[in-house]
Amino acid sequence: MKAEIITIGGELLDGSQADLNAAYLGSRLTSLGAQVVRVSTVPDAVDDIEEVTLRALDRADLVFTTGGLGVTADDRTKQAVARLFGRKLVLNEDVLDGVRARFDARNLPMPEINIAAAMLPEGARPIENQRGTAPGLLFEKGGALLFVLPGVPVELRSMFENFVSPFLEGRGLRPLAQERLIRTTGLPESEIAERVEQLARRLARTDVVYLPSVTGVDLKVIGRGHTPVEAAKTAEKSQEKIAAKLEPYVYARGDESLEKVVGYLLSMGESTLSVAESCTGGRLGWRLTRVPGSSEYFQGGVIVYSDELKQRLLKIKAGVLKKHGAVSGETASEMARGVREKCATDYGLAITGVAGPGGGTKDKPVGVVFIAVAGESGERVQELRLAGSRGTIRRAACQAALDLLRRFLLNIEEVR
Amino acid sequence: MKAEIITIGGELLDGSQADLNAAYLGSRLTSLGAQVVRVSTVPDAVDDIEEVTLRALDRADLVFTTGGLGVTADDRTKQAVARLFGRKLVLNEDVLDGVRARFDARNLPMPEINIAAAMLPEGARPIENQRGTAPGLLFEKGGALLFVLPGVPVELRSMFENFVSPFLEGRGLRPLAQERLIRTTGLPESEIAERVEQLARRLARTDVVYLPSVTGVDLKVIGRGHTPVEAAKTAEKSQEKIAAKLEPYVYARGDESLEKVVGYLLSMGESTLSVAESCTGGRLGWRLTRVPGSSEYFQGGVIVYSDELKQRLLKIKAGVLKKHGAVSGETASEMARGVREKCATDYGLAITGVAGPGGGTKDKPVGVVFIAVAGESGERVQELRLAGSRGTIRRAACQAALDLLRRFLLNIEEVR
Repeated sequence: MKAEIITIGGELLDGSQADLNAAYLGSRLTSLGAQVVRVSTVPDAVDDIEEVTLRALDRADLVFTTGGLGVTADDRTKQAVARLFGRKLVLNEDVLDGVRARFDARNLPMPEINIAAAMLPEGARPIENQRGTAPGLLFEKGGALLFVLPGVPVELRSMFENFVSPFLEGRGLRPLAQERLIRTTGLPESEIAERVEQLARRLARTDVVYLPSVTGVDLKVIGRGHTPVEAAKTAEKSQEKIAAKLEPYVYARGDESLEKVVGYLLSMGESTLSVAESCTGGRLGWRLTRVPGSSEYFQGGVIVYSDELKQRLLKIKAGVLKKHGAVSGETASEMARGVREKCATDYGLAITGVAGPGGGTKDKPVGVVFIAVAGESGERVQELRLAGSRGTIRRAACQAALDLLRRFLLNIEEVR
Repeated sequence: MKAEIITIGGELLDGSQADLNAAYLGSRLTSLGAQVVRVSTVPDAVDDIEEVTLRALDRADLVFTTGGLGVTADDRTKQAVARLFGRKLVLNEDVLDGVRARFDARNLPMPEINIAAAMLPEGARPIENQRGTAPGLLFEKGGALLFVLPGVPVELRSMFENFVSPFLEGRGLRPLAQERLIRTTGLPESEIAERVEQLARRLARTDVVYLPSVTGVDLKVIGRGHTPVEAAKTAEKSQEKIAAKLEPYVYARGDESLEKVVGYLLSMGESTLSVAESCTGGRLGWRLTRVPGSSEYFQGGVIVYSDELKQRLLKIKAGVLKKHGAVSGETASEMARGVREKCATDYGLAITGVAGPGGGTKDKPVGVVFIAVAGESGERVQELRLAGSRGTIRRAACQAALDLLRRFLLNIEEVR
């Protein structure tokens, strides 16, 4: 099946926003087995939208528009598709009830302007918007399907996953390539390539894509086959062989986050955790609490950004700070032990470092970070030398701290 | 002048890469005063490239292609434009010398395949590639210009800055549009539209673009004029008039983040801040410490995710937690006061709420969040009813808390 994507909005043309919706739809449609043959971006203008949609419906079996579905004057997609199909916009009472309910739930009066969200082209099938006001639309024209979707990314994704994807699978779209993920942290991409590349070339019907980021390298293992089941089997076997070459840097075989893996390990041991953060300012806690249900093992902790709070909240001795400095293995270790005791948890995890851009010295340049974990059985401290911007250093430091905890919980010896 | 952008490559269609080249070109062309009217993405296929380029040359004064210019088999752009103009590919000796010189400079033999880089359509003007092998191309057709540029971002950018931009300025292109930003939080997009739309329609030579996100709505105000200075004046006047309609929800006239604005206010007053976070788990601290130099006013705080830590670290009385619940105005208020005292700071800022997906009750459903600020002069508490995913609720709660602090510091009365 051929698919075309039409993204709508001036912010995509003048470069104020990169077109991430097209990338999302392209990736999802490809993994469902469709072939994306064109992406077009046009302004919120009825003529442009109508012209490009008509041409796309001529060429492709599936056409997707995103954007221009809101209720402000510059949202024109509905008018354009109504004109294209020669339909009028009429009030859909069900949709209006839904919109009203969204405002009621938040105890807000519904501004009049939102009635526009419930004005739909006659005969269009509305697609429920669980994350916003304006519904999506589905049209059929000859053999082709036109999906009119919102431009707000969370709304688009929710609609695609909850409605479009199951709908297309119901129409017989079948993925003949299957992806499996391997998530690693702590090894640079070049070293991963050295360990894996020969094997990857030998594996039949398998492609490997490296996805490096600030927090590690993910490997996408794509297996092919004549049926979805065969493709899945290929992908899984290849995944296992490649992952074996990368232990113990592999933290997940699948799309689990490192905080989720760590949470799972803590839950298994019925253990609790607290954190003490200096240069990361709270990010470690934020990441741990991204996982729903993390209250089972995560208690909280302290943000000790200033040296004064390191002493006041964690009773770190002025002598230690003076002798070794706030950025040192000794301070990291005292922070981990201190927060574990203060919060009465099984484990304490700590980060202190120089995130920059200022604050670096000859001995402790920007990028030097110490992480430490403390538990009943002892503790472990690690020094990191990170590169990049303030944001990059802080993100990488949190990832390394979570991985230190993972290896501590799994009794994996020190690495690198 | 109207411009169109054509990006070429399968990796842009299957979503393995977001189209950042289109965003770069869009932004640069807009700031040069051109109006980008369409972006099209096609595969490396001669037919598609030829068709979409022909149509673009019909509609626009300036057409840019990126990608498909390399020397491997799947690079087809040159063939496509040669066919389009009815020209043959011929060897350009000057270009070949340049390619050879690149290899010589690195003491490498030139692989034969690179001769293809010097095969250019007859009559095309080559554009020097300072960062790679294959040159760009410039064609004129009637009044329209076609720039054929590489897809590798550093090559594209270097060619645009060193050749395209000066060339277009030589042709009289002047930045006749200027942008100014207004950043708001606390008002839904529909209400902003109601307050602003009439005015926006009346403002001469001004466009307004709404950029909604989880943390608020930004308004991009675009002013036009016959000279860059005139355009800037128009943009600034319109920005001021529109911002006046949106007070006190405007936190920045420019691209500053809310944490930066709050940091500035704290610095001005030589004041210090600490935070107490429950459902946001550390995000508030993370955001405040994104600002380099935030240690001047931000001390740190506590992450009191569990009720036990609320009592242990902040001495919140079990009675308050029992009577009003951990998610209540009373608890938020005690948290703000408690952390202010514990950390000996001028202000304390606190968040407690139900971020979901579980944990909601009839009285306190998912999305109910209380935020509080405490200072020497008193305190303020606000109840929020937020919608969306766990991530959305937590992000929006942090933004609202920072804005509560902003309004408290500025003595702005309660809103909504």
